[in-house]
Amino acid sequence: MLKPLVVIALGGNAMIRGKQKGTIEEQIENVTETAKQIMKVIPKWRIVITHGNGPQVGNLMLQMEAGSHSPFNRPILPMDVCGSMTQGQIGYLIQNILGNLLVTEGPPSRLDSSKKIKVATIITQVVVSKDDPAFQNPTKPVGPFYNEDQVDRIKKDHPDFTIIEDAGRGYRRVVPSPDPIEIYEKDQVNDLLEAGFILIASGGGGIPVVENLDGTVTGVEAVIDKDLAGERLAIDTKAEAFAILTDTDKVYLNYKTPQQKGVDRMTVTEVEKHLKEGAFGDKLKGSMGPKLRAAIRFLKDGGKKVVITTPELAAAALDGDAGTTIVP
Amino acid sequence: MLKPLVVIALGGNAMIRGKQKGTIEEQIENVTETAKQIMKVIPKWRIVITHGNGPQVGNLMLQMEAGSHSPFNRPILPMDVCGSMTQGQIGYLIQNILGNLLVTEGPPSRLDSSKKIKVATIITQVVVSKDDPAFQNPTKPVGPFYNEDQVDRIKKDHPDFTIIEDAGRGYRRVVPSPDPIEIYEKDQVNDLLEAGFILIASGGGGIPVVENLDGTVTGVEAVIDKDLAGERLAIDTKAEAFAILTDTDKVYLNYKTPQQKGVDRMTVTEVEKHLKEGAFGDKLKGSMGPKLRAAIRFLKDGGKKVVITTPELAAAALDGDAGTTIVP
Repeated sequence: MLKPLVVIALGGNAMIRGKQKGTIEEQIENVTETAKQIMKVIPKWRIVITHGNGPQVGNLMLQMEAGSHSPFNRPILPMDVCGSMTQGQIGYLIQNILGNLLVTEGPPSRLDSSKKIKVATIITQVVVSKDDPAFQNPTKPVGPFYNEDQVDRIKKDHPDFTIIEDAGRGYRRVVPSPDPIEIYEKDQVNDLLEAGFILIASGGGGIPVVENLDGTVTGVEAVIDKDLAGERLAIDTKAEAFAILTDTDKVYLNYKTPQQKGVDRMTVTEVEKHLKEGAFGDKLKGSMGPKLRAAIRFLKDGGKKVVITTPELAAAALDGDAGTTIVP
Repeated sequence: MLKPLVVIALGGNAMIRGKQKGTIEEQIENVTETAKQIMKVIPKWRIVITHGNGPQVGNLMLQMEAGSHSPFNRPILPMDVCGSMTQGQIGYLIQNILGNLLVTEGPPSRLDSSKKIKVATIITQVVVSKDDPAFQNPTKPVGPFYNEDQVDRIKKDHPDFTIIEDAGRGYRRVVPSPDPIEIYEKDQVNDLLEAGFILIASGGGGIPVVENLDGTVTGVEAVIDKDLAGERLAIDTKAEAFAILTDTDKVYLNYKTPQQKGVDRMTVTEVEKHLKEGAFGDKLKGSMGPKLRAAIRFLKDGGKKVVITTPELAAAALDGDAGTTIVP
């Protein structure tokens, strides 16, 4: 019998942590730690991995900005292309490092017991709607902070940019964060899953594309939330579980207050009630909100369980022995 | 019956031409032209696409260099990682543009006639030998030209770099160009081919990795010739034909001399004889030499035919009606 399928969404800290700049040494060390934890999940689950790309794409956009001036004068590429480049970058690092662990410690492939399980990275476009209200209201900050002087030049060089003031920290470009509708390469992902590979797909929330009237798709300058894209990936691959890995061992009520209390298990109804009452605490708003919304959506779309925990506790959480489990 | 398989190797000019800088508009226009030509090959052939990445990886390395100084201070990533980023970039562009042409004009998928053929990009590592003599003798120029002042700083910042003087044009880093041994993700490529997809793989000659004693692989700073890597890809996918697309309609004897003469058809023995006698002319040495060596290797490894021509003539050349055909 086939093992059940889990989509694992890795947060940015799986690759570049806290104050790190993202040198290759840092990224290899962090990905190695994360890959070791994923190895513990393999005995009981088939796996699709998705991941954030915030620090990587931020570095790349800065590098392109730096390289656009004299004496370099190289063209800045749009955000959809930058996204594709970080999918290649992070996909390669995970595929190489996890692939190496599979060579030395992995189980044999399901289809050919003389071979080990292998990893594949699929460059992935994610369809969003042209009519998504996010396109009228860009909110996702991307790229570098600018000071007063720089922002005037940026506005002149890029009249299409929306720039906002980030209190005390300078000015920053914001882009739309539309809702993901469909993993455009889902057939490719499912085919490789069927054949027994571990897949890396839809990195950085996927390359956002809008569908045209003739069915073709066109890249847009936007950023899709990686957990919401991971939810689409989980539905489009018929995954049983969706594991959202982050830097906290479980979801907390009244986070970072004296009344803080970890939650082992919740239903969708309980999550919705807590969200409505603001019971998770303001501190959680930035990072946990989208995760909980992705969790609710997965379970309403037919998924069986969501776990939210750290990479270290992922295998135990999928067994119900750690982290927060959310069920329909 | 299955259509025969062709590996198509696209030269750099399929994406960025001549004096172009590589803006997104230029790349989209060029890839669109190339994709239209690939559409003509589809009725008779299953297809794997590989491609160069010279201009793209050159831009990226310049951008990383530019972004490594104050006020940006972002880390420079090694060449294997840069290669993976350009695989994502170019893979996305081809996959999006060719995928769109397939949506509007493509034939139905072999396995599900209600669907169109789709495209997939696989991030690809290519195994080279640790003992390849190229590692003792780096020859492939990469990245920017440096002047006298810059080169001193570069040598200080990167004591591991080999820098050569390029007469009259300044100084430049050179890296090893080892021989490709195996497409590491060949199972992933073959699985998707089997299912009826058009594959993009091993871009930029693949991400060069050396195999360690325990069977794991480690990225190295090197560049694999994209036609030689394409040859490996053709063998590892059991392709019948290998099409090397470039900016000349066929191979010429005494190229750019009054005795210039186009060749319609040659055997391996004839190519070897001409190469030995220098009959292709010195002008051809830089670009055609590696293509002819890749062609000879493919046919000696069991391939049935190689065509060398432009993207515009690719379909006709595969029919034997244009370009240069080389046979065993």
